Amino acid sequence: MEKLSIPKGTRDFGQIESFRRKYIIEKIQSNFIKYGFAPIETPTMEHLSVLTGKYGDEGEQLIFKVLNSGDYLKKIKSEDYNKDAKTLLPKIAEKGLRYDLTVPFARHVVMNQHNITFPFKRYQIQPVWRADRPQRGRYREFYQCDADIIGTRSEWNEIELTLLMHDVFKSLNFSDFEIKINHREVLFAMAAAAGLKGKEIPFCTSLDKIDKIGIEKVLHEINLIKGKVEIVSKYLEIITSSVDQSLKIKELVALTGSSNKGFEELISFFKILDEIPDRNFKISLDFSLARGLSYYTGMIYEVKPTKVKIGSICGGGRYDNLTGMFGLKGISGIGISFGLDRIYDVLTESNLFPKTSNGSPKVLITHLDPTAFIHGINLIEKIRRAGIPSDLFPDSIKIQKQMNYANKLAIPYVITIGSDEISKARYPLKNMSSGKTLTLPIEEIIETLKTNQR
Amino acid sequence: MEKLSIPKGTRDFGQIESFRRKYIIEKIQSNFIKYGFAPIETPTMEHLSVLTGKYGDEGEQLIFKVLNSGDYLKKIKSEDYNKDAKTLLPKIAEKGLRYDLTVPFARHVVMNQHNITFPFKRYQIQPVWRADRPQRGRYREFYQCDADIIGTRSEWNEIELTLLMHDVFKSLNFSDFEIKINHREVLFAMAAAAGLKGKEIPFCTSLDKIDKIGIEKVLHEINLIKGKVEIVSKYLEIITSSVDQSLKIKELVALTGSSNKGFEELISFFKILDEIPDRNFKISLDFSLARGLSYYTGMIYEVKPTKVKIGSICGGGRYDNLTGMFGLKGISGIGISFGLDRIYDVLTESNLFPKTSNGSPKVLITHLDPTAFIHGINLIEKIRRAGIPSDLFPDSIKIQKQMNYANKLAIPYVITIGSDEISKARYPLKNMSSGKTLTLPIEEIIETLKTNQR
Repeated sequence: MEKLSIPKGTRDFGQIESFRRKYIIEKIQSNFIKYGFAPIETPTMEHLSVLTGKYGDEGEQLIFKVLNSGDYLKKIKSEDYNKDAKTLLPKIAEKGLRYDLTVPFARHVVMNQHNITFPFKRYQIQPVWRADRPQRGRYREFYQCDADIIGTRSEWNEIELTLLMHDVFKSLNFSDFEIKINHREVLFAMAAAAGLKGKEIPFCTSLDKIDKIGIEKVLHEINLIKGKVEIVSKYLEIITSSVDQSLKIKELVALTGSSNKGFEELISFFKILDEIPDRNFKISLDFSLARGLSYYTGMIYEVKPTKVKIGSICGGGRYDNLTGMFGLKGISGIGISFGLDRIYDVLTESNLFPKTSNGSPKVLITHLDPTAFIHGINLIEKIRRAGIPSDLFPDSIKIQKQMNYANKLAIPYVITIGSDEISKARYPLKNMSSGKTLTLPIEEIIETLKTNQR
Repeated sequence: MEKLSIPKGTRDFGQIESFRRKYIIEKIQSNFIKYGFAPIETPTMEHLSVLTGKYGDEGEQLIFKVLNSGDYLKKIKSEDYNKDAKTLLPKIAEKGLRYDLTVPFARHVVMNQHNITFPFKRYQIQPVWRADRPQRGRYREFYQCDADIIGTRSEWNEIELTLLMHDVFKSLNFSDFEIKINHREVLFAMAAAAGLKGKEIPFCTSLDKIDKIGIEKVLHEINLIKGKVEIVSKYLEIITSSVDQSLKIKELVALTGSSNKGFEELISFFKILDEIPDRNFKISLDFSLARGLSYYTGMIYEVKPTKVKIGSICGGGRYDNLTGMFGLKGISGIGISFGLDRIYDVLTESNLFPKTSNGSPKVLITHLDPTAFIHGINLIEKIRRAGIPSDLFPDSIKIQKQMNYANKLAIPYVITIGSDEISKARYPLKNMSSGKTLTLPIEEIIETLKTNQR
């Protein structure tokens, strides 16, 4: 038999990893709910016609395609046999695994537009798949945790998602992050000033790489796409300078020739934030932030850890025409996506997972002989009826082996039953970390377990 | 643009459906945790070498295959072009979507055998995919909620899973079900007595259809596979009779010639159940129950609704050699699987979903003018800091339209802010179902919302 394995870039999660993933999801989800988002779910598979043309050529190649079921060759004719993989594809595969949650969301909104009440606030926490080259923080199957507000252009949306981001990370006890924001219209105005109207996407893509490749190489790329290098050079000078945010905005307005909606919205955004008390905002303008996705039209934002190197752990932005890709025009929206898998990696490196629980039951009943085991059935019934995660060791084996089991699983409490305990109806409850034992009737054991966190 | 759709047999879930699905999952999961099961997760895709040979020919055809990424034709040579779909498959697809959670679980246990502490109690709640013909209660993407105990042969396991089944349905307020149990060794003894040694699978498959096709047709099928019809006929007479369970067992022992482990385990099972107080067990022997899966070797069980016609909503059994399929022999286990999607359908038809919540926020803040909106930002901050799911209507539009929004989403409470409310710092909290309004300071509103379920 060949060695067992799982597909490249995918992962098995054991008890502790799954428990911790659920912990993160629960925190994100409860914040989504607190902010008034309602859940939806979409299918894992979408028609390829829904997915294609949405992610650019590069993204499109990363979509996992699902072979048609049954005789998948039935649409192939003999003259097709010399064709290439791309040409044959539509004949043998009509479905793909979702690449993100945004395009399925847009598809869902358009399909259900007559049943949805707008503004529509939805959240969605599901895995997505990309046939990307696996590397640190990049997996082929990973979870996105998305919240979107669609059907309103209110400035409050941008504020609300900013508050949400802070609340999510606060609830995870994570504070070593910064939120960078920018505005697509500012980027577009810059592109125009640099003579790159119509070439906004390559302009933004180059700019976005400034941290990775440096100013010189960015300017080189701008030159290659025939942009005005001297203007972009001034632009880079401003955005990498350490002057305060309002001054930066003024200098950029001067450079691009006039203000626009982008600048105005950024100014207004910070003004509203200033009025919200008791908040320690970790947010700053970053005029080089571009984000790859082509559907953003307004404010964009990204969250990066400041101490752990892993790329962005959350991001999103305003889109004025997301559902336009499926024919429903004129609906503005704004979204945010938390990357569960990277957040997991960051919390692990930052040692921020709670130490009080690991997914094991709170108490294990062990027993000295088969009669004690039968007695244990009654006790475990009572403990479980009280809702306490608990277990009865299933086999009549040496007590030391049963205790080893409790230790290996880091079960915090152990009860041991023998004939003496049965006759007195009092049982020793051992705290496995302190080593202390209390001998109590079952009702008091239940009370103790209920009130003690650990 | 062609009409938008989702793949056949898959579903979109809107707010209410998703909320209710999460409600069921939460109940099942909290019972799993109460019974000491720990979570694991496995990848959506598995190597086809892991999935093949496990589900029979029929099952195997239902596995969704994922096309290799990049140039999937690169392993195809020109002489392959006249080959059929099945022969070409291994060259173009190496991965498939998981068909159930049991085989991936077995693969996980074997791969991680040195890190797992046995007995291993795991639960897993994830979707699975089957390219089956969609029909009532049968979908191409559906959730399984599995709990397994592996590495022990204790009789307690069977009892524990029986208690768990009762607890799960009780927590869902669902009581119109029955649990049928049988034992594979009883079936095998019957097959031997009927001259069908080595043909146990077709024997069991026929027997399992007795409710659907009737005694006559079952006997016809037995005749076709050369079984002793007169013995099977007596067998069917006993199992469809209304005598009590212990008498049935006695008659079957007589018919098969001798008792065996199967009969003994069933007798012992009911004996232990009898000793557990305050339980209203809905469980009975059904000697025609076979369950299709080939890996069960001991007790098997299935839960069926008694009033809603939809097939089984839960099932499982004891397997003595599950991990043997991946080379790890001699590890006994027992498992159970709850079918989320069918349970959803049953609860819907039985009108058993809680009426107090639908996933909408608990309160909406509406506002009469832009100043009131800005004031609302401070109020929503306070309400959310108290952890209450809540929303501030994002646009400054007519109050009636804002109220319509609250009504459509069935939001239970609405606060309306105008200049008068701002100056007095007291706000009208309207209960949308009773129509009653209380005018209170924000702190008292928060207290009211916290204490009122609806």
